[in-house]
Amino acid sequence: MLDLQHIRNQFPILNQQVNGKPLVYFDNAATSQKPLSVMNSWEKYYSEINANVHRGIHTLSQLATEEMELSRRKIQKFINAKNDFEVIFTKGTTEGINLIAYSLTNLIKENDEIIISYLEHHSNIVPWQMLCERTGAKLKVIPIDENGILQLDFLDKNLSEKTKIVSVNQVSNALGIVNPIDEIIAKTRANSNAMIVIDGAQSAPHFKIDVQKIDCDFFVFSGHKMYAPMATGILYGKEEILRKIQPFHGGGEMIATCTFEKTTYADLPFKFEAGTPNVGGNIALGAAVDFIENISHEHLQNHENALLDYAQKQLLQIEGLKIYGENAHRTGVVSFNLEGIGISSDVGMILDKLGIAVRTGHHCTQPIMNFFNIAGTVRASFAVYNTFEEIDILFEGVKKAQKMLG
Amino acid sequence: MLDLQHIRNQFPILNQQVNGKPLVYFDNAATSQKPLSVMNSWEKYYSEINANVHRGIHTLSQLATEEMELSRRKIQKFINAKNDFEVIFTKGTTEGINLIAYSLTNLIKENDEIIISYLEHHSNIVPWQMLCERTGAKLKVIPIDENGILQLDFLDKNLSEKTKIVSVNQVSNALGIVNPIDEIIAKTRANSNAMIVIDGAQSAPHFKIDVQKIDCDFFVFSGHKMYAPMATGILYGKEEILRKIQPFHGGGEMIATCTFEKTTYADLPFKFEAGTPNVGGNIALGAAVDFIENISHEHLQNHENALLDYAQKQLLQIEGLKIYGENAHRTGVVSFNLEGIGISSDVGMILDKLGIAVRTGHHCTQPIMNFFNIAGTVRASFAVYNTFEEIDILFEGVKKAQKMLG
Repeated sequence: MLDLQHIRNQFPILNQQVNGKPLVYFDNAATSQKPLSVMNSWEKYYSEINANVHRGIHTLSQLATEEMELSRRKIQKFINAKNDFEVIFTKGTTEGINLIAYSLTNLIKENDEIIISYLEHHSNIVPWQMLCERTGAKLKVIPIDENGILQLDFLDKNLSEKTKIVSVNQVSNALGIVNPIDEIIAKTRANSNAMIVIDGAQSAPHFKIDVQKIDCDFFVFSGHKMYAPMATGILYGKEEILRKIQPFHGGGEMIATCTFEKTTYADLPFKFEAGTPNVGGNIALGAAVDFIENISHEHLQNHENALLDYAQKQLLQIEGLKIYGENAHRTGVVSFNLEGIGISSDVGMILDKLGIAVRTGHHCTQPIMNFFNIAGTVRASFAVYNTFEEIDILFEGVKKAQKMLG
Repeated sequence: MLDLQHIRNQFPILNQQVNGKPLVYFDNAATSQKPLSVMNSWEKYYSEINANVHRGIHTLSQLATEEMELSRRKIQKFINAKNDFEVIFTKGTTEGINLIAYSLTNLIKENDEIIISYLEHHSNIVPWQMLCERTGAKLKVIPIDENGILQLDFLDKNLSEKTKIVSVNQVSNALGIVNPIDEIIAKTRANSNAMIVIDGAQSAPHFKIDVQKIDCDFFVFSGHKMYAPMATGILYGKEEILRKIQPFHGGGEMIATCTFEKTTYADLPFKFEAGTPNVGGNIALGAAVDFIENISHEHLQNHENALLDYAQKQLLQIEGLKIYGENAHRTGVVSFNLEGIGISSDVGMILDKLGIAVRTGHHCTQPIMNFFNIAGTVRASFAVYNTFEEIDILFEGVKKAQKMLG
């Protein structure tokens, strides 16, 4: 059973008034708050052992290196990667996907095909569009139905030898829909030799991730959405593929030998970690993993699912309230509009006056908005520290907004 | 006059014992320590206003955005950029140079020429080698003499219409040599239309930077070497050039409109800031700027120059000690070897036992090491909190190492 008060005590930021009301923080899909254990880990690093890593033989540098590599192994275990060197530190999901798209460039040819889905965040659309521009490859898009559910028969018709990359998110950031990645991966493996990229930005904070079981080639996620500081993130890649693709950034740490005539690259994971890493942040990401594992995925997921179910049940009592993806399997997010109120930010501003932080607008998913023919939605997204009482406050707030704007 | 004790009080990490001796931290060119004001700024952000920026209308998101944009304007003033949107947040110098090299790709053709110098860090070599591989351009290298001084007559012979990029550091990380960038830029402007990139990783922590006076097209530096947390850095670019070049990372924040058919890019600076920025880190970088400006560049530079002069004078008393770049104009760094002791890390390990943190090895500048026909050097590098007493400890330590290894 989840001790919610104990958890909330680790997030002093939640105990504040916003516009004279207790803060209700429902913008977790944009970024989560950070527990004291994560902040203390960061502070302890900078107060006691701050140094640059790997290249130093002095004590602080060795301690910093040990702590960061310990964190890498924690994350390896967290996602069940086979090897620690398959875990690459990045500054977040966006960098992870861009790294892959750049590093694959010379494996992609004109008329090759890249498949993404209609439910992607811009960060899983634009890097592939840019790759298509560089190479002449073509982008294909798995469609959705009115419930926001991916139409996988598209894969049966479109997967072929030409398909070189399939990149989809495990959970949609805009709608919270949990996509059937097992089925997508099975179809992809059966009908192509495509590399499979999973955007886990919205799943890693909520589920147990097992990259070996998923059997993807790449899995990327952000630290800051799962209780770690910003500018942290992970790119997991299968060893054989990480060895095959080009490095992304050139610089220190990623080379074996460097002359002006010829440079050879370092072994994994350093081949992809040019420059000074975010040592303090990467160590704090390990503390965030500890935070989640101390709660346990089971407790965390049960609580978040209960929050979502309750939010949906309450909100649907409001006449004229439409939840996007209402009938889809979802996690962590309820995304909605009020009939007759075209501008989601008007609702958001009223909620803000009541202390409730939600996100409004297109959530960096303009294609989804175009599909539903809307400019945006109101999105409430949940983390483990949210409460049922907070959902009641949201419910009353939305009713008030409807009255004021109706 | 510098109140050194007041400054040191802001760095509690310095008050510790390493291997039973008071820590002497002389690895500042790798990364500096962080003052309490910087750490408090970071902690305050995460304790009070943490939220994702720009896309949110709720109070915390607006506060976070305001604070980060305030920091951008502080940095604009710090480097005297004409416009705040010419200041792009990065994760450090390495990312900055890679961003430039990728974003320029489609402006570079086969047999175009890129000029760098012999004194560059790998991060200002490898990205250009990778650009040459992508485009067929050629890399040319300004040579050095035995003092490590750049031989600028090379530019007279090699600058031409073919030269598309000239990229040099303002201060060498391995040797601390201050390069004559004014003269390099004047020659470049007179004899080519090349874009000029200045790597300021080792100058921004020590000098007043004025990008308009320097008249470079790009200026990049890292936050973590100038008292800010890791995963912070700045790419300055002239407006007209930032508008001309392609974006680097695709994703959220950097697009204006996104459909699967066509994506248009956002205005500056967001065109180059895809994904969630390091909000807390970027705000803390502003606090680091305040820290430096509160001391004043004049006081900081006078103290650091006095430390360097004293270190050089002391160390040169040691027979068989060679300082690389001894006769060159330098800042912040003394890089040396002891005659007959081929392995710099042996010296480093003995110094570490005495509590002294120096860097040993090739300092990510293998070409310089090859030039001097050495595997590495012992590098002591200074920050504003270092003292003359610490240099005496280094002096005694090096003598002891010589005795033990000789």
